[in-house]
Amino acid sequence: MSKKEGANKNIKSRAPTESDVAKVAGVSQSAVSRAFTPGASVAQSTREKILHAARSIGYQPNLLARSLATRRSNIIALAISNLENPFYAQVVKELSEQLAETGRHILLFTTNAEEDENQALEQALSYQVDALVMAASKASIELTMQCQKAGVPIVQINRETRLPGISTVWGENQRAGELVAAFLHASKHEEYAFVAGTKDSTISQMRQKGFIEYLSSVGKKDVKIVYGDYTFETAAIVARQLLEVEKRPDAIFCASDYMAFAVIDVATREFGLDVPNDLSVIGVDNVPESAHSAYDLTTFSQPAGSLVQEAIIIIDKMIADPGRRAIRCEVAGDLIVRGSAKRPKTGFVNNVTNKIWLP
Amino acid sequence: MSKKEGANKNIKSRAPTESDVAKVAGVSQSAVSRAFTPGASVAQSTREKILHAARSIGYQPNLLARSLATRRSNIIALAISNLENPFYAQVVKELSEQLAETGRHILLFTTNAEEDENQALEQALSYQVDALVMAASKASIELTMQCQKAGVPIVQINRETRLPGISTVWGENQRAGELVAAFLHASKHEEYAFVAGTKDSTISQMRQKGFIEYLSSVGKKDVKIVYGDYTFETAAIVARQLLEVEKRPDAIFCASDYMAFAVIDVATREFGLDVPNDLSVIGVDNVPESAHSAYDLTTFSQPAGSLVQEAIIIIDKMIADPGRRAIRCEVAGDLIVRGSAKRPKTGFVNNVTNKIWLP
Repeated sequence: MSKKEGANKNIKSRAPTESDVAKVAGVSQSAVSRAFTPGASVAQSTREKILHAARSIGYQPNLLARSLATRRSNIIALAISNLENPFYAQVVKELSEQLAETGRHILLFTTNAEEDENQALEQALSYQVDALVMAASKASIELTMQCQKAGVPIVQINRETRLPGISTVWGENQRAGELVAAFLHASKHEEYAFVAGTKDSTISQMRQKGFIEYLSSVGKKDVKIVYGDYTFETAAIVARQLLEVEKRPDAIFCASDYMAFAVIDVATREFGLDVPNDLSVIGVDNVPESAHSAYDLTTFSQPAGSLVQEAIIIIDKMIADPGRRAIRCEVAGDLIVRGSAKRPKTGFVNNVTNKIWLP
Repeated sequence: MSKKEGANKNIKSRAPTESDVAKVAGVSQSAVSRAFTPGASVAQSTREKILHAARSIGYQPNLLARSLATRRSNIIALAISNLENPFYAQVVKELSEQLAETGRHILLFTTNAEEDENQALEQALSYQVDALVMAASKASIELTMQCQKAGVPIVQINRETRLPGISTVWGENQRAGELVAAFLHASKHEEYAFVAGTKDSTISQMRQKGFIEYLSSVGKKDVKIVYGDYTFETAAIVARQLLEVEKRPDAIFCASDYMAFAVIDVATREFGLDVPNDLSVIGVDNVPESAHSAYDLTTFSQPAGSLVQEAIIIIDKMIADPGRRAIRCEVAGDLIVRGSAKRPKTGFVNNVTNKIWLP
């Protein structure tokens, strides 16, 4: 029996260690350690020999043990709800892919009620995550304080809140409302409605504010507000309520593309309306589905990739300098013009991928 | 200064421990330990006192340290691609919610190319995950062997492969193809086409097999096969190729709902066809969007919640008995009848939520 086979045999009864790999590969234990540390220096041929030896005996570097030593787990907790909304599926995908570039991964917490969420997030903290990203989801003050005590930075994506110590990345919510109102007013609509998200959604409130204030400034003070709760089902219900009255709106702005899809479905299939000739519908987000010709939705874009990118920059700044103040960051969007709303005569510009409205 | 305040003050300079919490709460350290162990016995009033003390000093139980001791992390790695397909967004949501019921969470790996994936999964193993779930994603033989050596069970969702040691959960793929063919043949179609997924997708192959074999048995041997690669964009391209020839199909079966949406978009918007009068389109999955009236898609269901439920049962069996053989499990679906395909005269049954076809 060769020396290697002997080493192989002795370690079969317990989990293999770095030292076992070193024996099988015929290298030092520190070489094995370096081979499994991202960025550490070790010759390519040595690394291959070590990886081969590790595989042959079933050795796995224990990142948990390393996390305990370094207090860095390279795990980022993501608390998210509304995964059925394609915008949040995009956020998950973007965050996962962008974090993977630096060897980090998402520990996922899907949440519904606020209570569940705080419990889930307490669990996240106990995994020694490096940071907490919250999307379509809200933190209690208590939880926030707990994270600050534990030195774990929190970044919210897509909420305009100003809780102490919480960094946030959001889109141009108020401008979205203003620009959509200007677009609809320039294309001569008469009766306006806004399908809001949930009542406590800050981004929905800001979109509504921009929409209402612009319309009010041009003399349209009678805008109907209904709550679609960000779900397809509730948006369909409130769309029916809006459309079944005699003096129905000819322009509906929705706080998300996903709700706009429900409004278009109800208007065309149940009320036989032509979009946009009888009814203009505009959303927010620019999810991939909004470009599908079944909806062909005019929408104010909220680029998930850019929001995630800014969130990661903030996380890295907060980790590098834990004493840093919370950072708030707005990512610009565009009013992307497609076929679901009547168009003004002027103001169009072609950017790289889309026709946008810039009056 | 009270005793509690003194305890509070002394521990400010380092991370608080169980013993610090015990001092502040005025209980034993073992009570603190029990309070943070799911299912362990401790009086509710004591637990509350301990949780309050823990929060006041910023203590977090260290699940990583506990994982090292117990060799159970309560983390399940999920490797997934195609998150833009709502079926896989559903799988993520279901897996996350169902695992949360037993205090477990997903460590997410979104993958594209095969190479990336193996690298990502090696990293997953080093986090001492309890199991690996793979959805829309494939493992190499090498990786499989590595997981087996490390004692980490792998479960594939939605792949009909028979790799040694890998458990799998899939839908009724061949029956889906057969039943869709029977439905389309009974409603008197003439020219058939199949929009497959990727060339190496086993589930697409099984759906194709069922579809082609049934049609062949009734004398329809000339079925066009094109590859939509499971993406919206490629499905739209191959739909154009199918529809621009003179003798175009009047029945198209797609290996996923998501590709069927692309086919409907192209057929109605670009070719001015009426669905279903000029063209019947049927998908597989029954994603929530297929019920939206913009698509109103007839589809063979593949219930994400049930697939995930079976996957978790398998994981638990494999963890309880590591010597256990791989388990393969098929979850039944139904042909759900909506408006995107011409219907046969008979064979309809109403189940709880849908009209289904059971000839």
